[in-house]
Amino acid sequence: MYIAMNRFRVIRGEEETFETMWKTRERHLNTVPGYVEFHLLRGPAHDDHTLYASHTIWESHEAFVAWTRSEQFRQAHARAGGTKPLYLGGPQFEGFEAVIIEGKDGSRVGDAA
Amino acid sequence: MYIAMNRFRVIRGEEETFETMWKTRERHLNTVPGYVEFHLLRGPAHDDHTLYASHTIWESHEAFVAWTRSEQFRQAHARAGGTKPLYLGGPQFEGFEAVIIEGKDGSRVGDAA
Repeated sequence: MYIAMNRFRVIRGEEETFETMWKTRERHLNTVPGYVEFHLLRGPAHDDHTLYASHTIWESHEAFVAWTRSEQFRQAHARAGGTKPLYLGGPQFEGFEAVIIEGKDGSRVGDAA
Repeated sequence: MYIAMNRFRVIRGEEETFETMWKTRERHLNTVPGYVEFHLLRGPAHDDHTLYASHTIWESHEAFVAWTRSEQFRQAHARAGGTKPLYLGGPQFEGFEAVIIEGKDGSRVGDAA
């Protein structure tokens, strides 16, 4: 399992606009091979921003890389932007490989990557 | 859905020890009400550390708070420590509320919090 995470420092007062942008965007990930799940997450509020994170969960790092090289990826990112800035700086990308996954029933996948 | 996230800057060369510590620790979360899933994730490597993140997924923020006030929590954290430092600074905690959850089948939970 691989998680592509982006962190966004959303300017205070722009939170609702930012969430609405995500809720109303065109979606295509569910047709991409290896895609598992997407989360938009609201984190702690700071003086000048509220932290958000997006998690896109993939079956493997390879599936994620294949998507970034696809025509779908190019089109999705060509559509982005065009409005006034909602966050400070750019989104900060971090990719993570799962080392351990433990479920509710006590099951474990060790070395899940 | 609520995600309690900790970020660890693990000293280069200590990654295997850090992962082994997690793989061999006593586990009790699966008996805690509202617990859903746990992930230990390996992120990008930097000059002096490798970033790791733990995600503990809860049904709600309330379930997480109840756990932090439990005797189980106190005992789990009393057992921690005692070895040489594996990471720079302390773990950095960030809590996140889910705003959107989208599954593989195109399903969506908006305002998932």
